[in-house]
Amino acid sequence: MTLPACEYLQLEQRDHALFVTFNRPEVRNALSLAMVQELMSVLEAASTDTTLRAIILRGSGGHFCAGGDIRDMANARARLGKDDSDPFYALNRCFGQLLEMAEQAPQMIVCVLEGTVMGGGFGLACISDVALAHSEARFALPETSLGIPPAQIAPFVVKRIGLTQARRLALLGESLCGDEAARLGITHSVYSSTASLEEALANTLSRIKRCAPKANAITKQLMLAVGKTDLGVLLDDAARAFSDAIQGEEGVEGTTAFMQKRKPTWAAERESEA
Amino acid sequence: MTLPACEYLQLEQRDHALFVTFNRPEVRNALSLAMVQELMSVLEAASTDTTLRAIILRGSGGHFCAGGDIRDMANARARLGKDDSDPFYALNRCFGQLLEMAEQAPQMIVCVLEGTVMGGGFGLACISDVALAHSEARFALPETSLGIPPAQIAPFVVKRIGLTQARRLALLGESLCGDEAARLGITHSVYSSTASLEEALANTLSRIKRCAPKANAITKQLMLAVGKTDLGVLLDDAARAFSDAIQGEEGVEGTTAFMQKRKPTWAAERESEA
Amino acid sequence: MTLPACEYLQLEQRDHALFVTFNRPEVRNALSLAMVQELMSVLEAASTDTTLRAIILRGSGGHFCAGGDIRDMANARARLGKDDSDPFYALNRCFGQLLEMAEQAPQMIVCVLEGTVMGGGFGLACISDVALAHSEARFALPETSLGIPPAQIAPFVVKRIGLTQARRLALLGESLCGDEAARLGITHSVYSSTASLEEALANTLSRIKRCAPKANAITKQLMLAVGKTDLGVLLDDAARAFSDAIQGEEGVEGTTAFMQKRKPTWAAERESEA
Repeated sequence: MTLPACEYLQLEQRDHALFVTFNRPEVRNALSLAMVQELMSVLEAASTDTTLRAIILRGSGGHFCAGGDIRDMANARARLGKDDSDPFYALNRCFGQLLEMAEQAPQMIVCVLEGTVMGGGFGLACISDVALAHSEARFALPETSLGIPPAQIAPFVVKRIGLTQARRLALLGESLCGDEAARLGITHSVYSSTASLEEALANTLSRIKRCAPKANAITKQLMLAVGKTDLGVLLDDAARAFSDAIQGEEGVEGTTAFMQKRKPTWAAERESEA
Repeated sequence: MTLPACEYLQLEQRDHALFVTFNRPEVRNALSLAMVQELMSVLEAASTDTTLRAIILRGSGGHFCAGGDIRDMANARARLGKDDSDPFYALNRCFGQLLEMAEQAPQMIVCVLEGTVMGGGFGLACISDVALAHSEARFALPETSLGIPPAQIAPFVVKRIGLTQARRLALLGESLCGDEAARLGITHSVYSSTASLEEALANTLSRIKRCAPKANAITKQLMLAVGKTDLGVLLDDAARAFSDAIQGEEGVEGTTAFMQKRKPTWAAERESEA
Repeated sequence: MTLPACEYLQLEQRDHALFVTFNRPEVRNALSLAMVQELMSVLEAASTDTTLRAIILRGSGGHFCAGGDIRDMANARARLGKDDSDPFYALNRCFGQLLEMAEQAPQMIVCVLEGTVMGGGFGLACISDVALAHSEARFALPETSLGIPPAQIAPFVVKRIGLTQARRLALLGESLCGDEAARLGITHSVYSSTASLEEALANTLSRIKRCAPKANAITKQLMLAVGKTDLGVLLDDAARAFSDAIQGEEGVEGTTAFMQKRKPTWAAERESEA
């Protein structure tokens, strides 16, 4: 995989995982349009790399992400009326494209949630396969108190935690701590120290390593299709995916390793890790 | 807004909120057809009043609502066969129309749940944007023990708490206390005294005041459309709504107030409150 | 009802309930194709028996069910290429047919979850109307660590506990205890001893008896249709079902018994139970 050059993201590949760090600590990693575009390029490059199995999203400077960037708004306002295009529409819709793309990534998306998790940052948390939070992280959807809807984010919040809780959070501009976010299902688990959060991340990456990459990608696709595809059709597709998998490289290796009581190749430690 | 004259509802408008009190304490505020029709008239009148931002539903005499009214059933039975119409169908369907209408209200619907919350009362709790309950409130769907399905209510219970829990509640005729109702997501929070319940209501109304009315109404619409509208189409609609909002009165006021470190006009206290 | 002869299932009818026990303790009740077909025959025979109101699924030997059967896989592999059919597809799809059929059963499906609840066993738990678990039961979706997707099971897990938690469980091959399974909604309740689990089962069967059988079957159908059928159409159907029910045998008996302050016929104890 050739990773794109990035100005606002720090990228580091270790073994089967790509660590993506939002690197605008001076604005609590506010998601500028440029940063959104860089993140989409990274996901695009990663999408065809079958050796890459996890993408970790986190922020530098103790904050995950404070949401949209004010300067983008000012720029959009300055461009208004210059031509037929709607710069606010384009700016907003672009973030939804990122969320759609990240949700559908074949890799496992792991979000490490610290400090501020607001607006667009909240949206990214909502598409993660695994979310790990510090107990002092603060989650909020403050948009409506600024006179605007959490437009691209709202559908992903509903898919994450259901209409009942999503509605209340957005319509009251409510702020939550890590424990409350876990209770609602925004994050899967909560840690009271940075050390325990790092340990949980290492455990998560090690668990991901034990699961076959293609089987995981297919499972994720099947699960994302529930409610969109008719159940009978989905089960037919699933049976074909099962038949392909069990006859494919992973299925043969997995069942053989199981009978030989050894780890399958995808779960093997590298020598440097042994 | 001109409010309709009501016999079974007490109406009181205070600032940005309309307090609607079910006023048939002698039958624990059972939802008679007449009361359902009054409530629909109130929601209809409120739907075009953009100064009204919250509608509070609660019951008089310490109970929220005990469900349908037995006399309506007797009346329907008496009218059976008099003409081609089906009085039971009409009676039942009318309550579903109320639930659909209340769910789609542009205002925030706040339910204050005390005492008995059964059948139709349970259904109303399930469409609220914010539900606050007394810990001693009792929630139940007793219909199947009477030989009938919780017909109009069932879909709203599933939307509220999911198929898994809805199914068990309805099929066992199970009764829940406030804490259990909060755990399942029927209510958002629970209070062990009337004083703390009232304080929570005041806080909720004050939080609603901080959020822009149109932005809230649009956000609610977007969230209710999830699962009904294709995600891509929904995100396109959302981007258009965002662009309109940020260029509209609320968006301009909200961002200006934010930069001027003052409250936006919609969050300003009235002099009498200062 | 004439029950089919079964080799791998123990069947016992008591009063309004059919106890189905998976009887392959030597392989922790792994769901062989033969056992799946027997279970489908039982559900088929039961589907038209309106006196039967509950079907209890549990495993012998202290385990619920360990998932698929390895010998079926070997058999399928041996048949590969013998003709145009795909034995893996057929084997996998068949289990999904069982889950669809069990989910739609007019009876209440009660799962008693002890010991190992894995793969297909996890899937069966996910379609139950009521699930009761021992606190030491272990729940897992280990498929992806074997190189295959939890293909037929995945959609039912998502319907049970939502995308957020289903995704994490399947993609990490995570294992859960009874309390965690209850927190996620896989099981409705958890018991720390076999005695309290048996007592909960008896209470559940007794509660089911208090609910009218047809009303329960209709309610279950209505709830399963949410999200598949347009809400307005569903509420129209529900109103027709309500009208039929209240004019039918159950509705008349239910309301009469309520006014006469006696138990309706469907809730009456048999003499031997008095």
